[in-house]
Amino acid sequence: MKVEGNHFRSIWFDEESKAVNIIDQRVLPHEFKIISLDTLKDFEIAIKHMAVRGAPLIGATAAFGMACQMRRDPSDECINISWERLHRTRPTAINLKWALDRCRTELLKTQEKTRAEISMELAKKIANEDVEINRNIGIHGLNIIQEIARRKSSSEPVRLLTHCNAGWLATVDWGTATSPMFQAHENGVPIHVWVDETRPRNQGALTSWELQNYGISHNYITDNAGGHLMQHGLVDMIIVGTDRTTSCGDVCNKIGTYLKALAAKDNGVPFYVALPSPTIDWTVRNGVEEIPIEERVETEVSWIHGLDKSGRVTKVKVTPDGSLGFNPAFDVTPAKLVTGLITERGVCDASESGLRALFPDLEKVSL
Amino acid sequence: MKVEGNHFRSIWFDEESKAVNIIDQRVLPHEFKIISLDTLKDFEIAIKHMAVRGAPLIGATAAFGMACQMRRDPSDECINISWERLHRTRPTAINLKWALDRCRTELLKTQEKTRAEISMELAKKIANEDVEINRNIGIHGLNIIQEIARRKSSSEPVRLLTHCNAGWLATVDWGTATSPMFQAHENGVPIHVWVDETRPRNQGALTSWELQNYGISHNYITDNAGGHLMQHGLVDMIIVGTDRTTSCGDVCNKIGTYLKALAAKDNGVPFYVALPSPTIDWTVRNGVEEIPIEERVETEVSWIHGLDKSGRVTKVKVTPDGSLGFNPAFDVTPAKLVTGLITERGVCDASESGLRALFPDLEKVSL
Repeated sequence: MKVEGNHFRSIWFDEESKAVNIIDQRVLPHEFKIISLDTLKDFEIAIKHMAVRGAPLIGATAAFGMACQMRRDPSDECINISWERLHRTRPTAINLKWALDRCRTELLKTQEKTRAEISMELAKKIANEDVEINRNIGIHGLNIIQEIARRKSSSEPVRLLTHCNAGWLATVDWGTATSPMFQAHENGVPIHVWVDETRPRNQGALTSWELQNYGISHNYITDNAGGHLMQHGLVDMIIVGTDRTTSCGDVCNKIGTYLKALAAKDNGVPFYVALPSPTIDWTVRNGVEEIPIEERVETEVSWIHGLDKSGRVTKVKVTPDGSLGFNPAFDVTPAKLVTGLITERGVCDASESGLRALFPDLEKVSL
Repeated sequence: MKVEGNHFRSIWFDEESKAVNIIDQRVLPHEFKIISLDTLKDFEIAIKHMAVRGAPLIGATAAFGMACQMRRDPSDECINISWERLHRTRPTAINLKWALDRCRTELLKTQEKTRAEISMELAKKIANEDVEINRNIGIHGLNIIQEIARRKSSSEPVRLLTHCNAGWLATVDWGTATSPMFQAHENGVPIHVWVDETRPRNQGALTSWELQNYGISHNYITDNAGGHLMQHGLVDMIIVGTDRTTSCGDVCNKIGTYLKALAAKDNGVPFYVALPSPTIDWTVRNGVEEIPIEERVETEVSWIHGLDKSGRVTKVKVTPDGSLGFNPAFDVTPAKLVTGLITERGVCDASESGLRALFPDLEKVSL
């Protein structure tokens, strides 16, 4: 998508320098900084420390990481070590495993001397597929937004609420939850977006920055505010992303998503989850019981990053000495709270039958 | 309560200097600073800018504000102007109106020359009553905690979750939601407190600071985390305060309380509200429809206060340029989500009949 008028993806292979470039999301929205990744360590740190983040982008990044390793050592052993090391960077998003499995399976079928080239082509293919998937999610989501718009008076925007950043920064391009927003904006459907701050890492600032770059009307709100807005009829629809969706439609997403889903249910607000099919974990049924929830360092809670008065990126401690934070990074929204899943193939119920009907081919492959 | 071993109230009249002192809560927990209030403007600013905050403390502060004015001008006109100016500082907490009404009613019955003395005695009485009310809330709340403790294995703490600061800093002493915690601690019942950060103003840091001063086990968590903890059986009971409770038991409290109540309901976690009777608004039935919700400046959302690396209190901006925050300060938790109300007279259902049974005298006085 565009940054001050120029088109960017969140990750790309630079054909001239032969480097994999990313936008460092640790300093966004305050600084726009591009960094190059080369070694396996570079990729591990980028994922673990969240220079790249978002389930689809993590998957693509892992594929590029594998490709860079193949340039150095195309052995079976290196494939397996790379799989292990990249896989353990973050435990919750299933796209990481999906991309790594795909790379390993493909590469083990090929001769060593061809692996450097094949793996880089595969990484690019995974990235390109992600872009196309998300564009299609946007088109299907747009239909829902247009339907809501038709029921409103012409001057009134459709008011959407989103949690975390399931924007183009969380994918290779377009985003998942934001793709319908960008599509609505391009198609002249007036929208206003309530952007959840999403503590502790304030990914709402990334979503705000994306929307701001397109001039889409929005407000940055605390994670506490959404329930009140829904009680007062100020939210027409919620769209969030997901890091892992079970075969029964439970949705694991950024911590706090579950609370918004509860409020949506209580107030009759439709709650949609936008997801590319690689986010479906066909091997898991009950999200609350089965999905491992990453627990991150407590300093992400006790220290907050931002710009100081002189415009420097810095951090401040919000807790008193001796009080420790506790920092689970995701929660699970049970399928019963989800109005529908917006996928690249269309919208379905958050249920086993809903997902099976849309993805009969994938289910068989994965089980 | 105690600060590093020394006893403090959150507001007190210094007999020597004849000044009203408060603890400046804008810089807590990073700095412990006492300031004196004298003019009506001092009191207005202290309440409006939240140097003092919390429904019971706001009420007591307004009473002291009226008393200080009576020293300067004990006229009926001054009583009415002071009532108006103090009343408009914050719209949601009903204790403010309750205390001001009580002062005005008493003072208008007396001769001008006696008003300075009477009003100061009344302010002290309101403050002392608040302390006694909260101590009793603690005793009734302790019963519930002890009951939960009896059902657990002996080594396991009762895990409480609270939102915002309904601690001694929000009252004159003891706190409302924290009073049962302090009582449990004093009575040797092991507890662990999950402290909601409570964006935008992070009053969770105040609650953490209070607990830290007593060595009570706790973790500071983001407002997003509570639902996940409840899904995994890590919360035994929620206790929050309230800024206004309707005659039917709807509870208006800090923004985000409603979301925790929904999660409590969904997970079978008891959700209690601790309240002194002056927080009941007998004239209001439906909280969502009738209680005015304060909307505060957007900079409270976009800028966050804390300590920088060199230990200075400063603030950082978390939003990108051009993205504005939206900042409703309270929400309403419908009575149906509330397990019980813990008052100074005991615990009752969050319902008209529950409140009527405990407070037949008050209801008649107020209607």
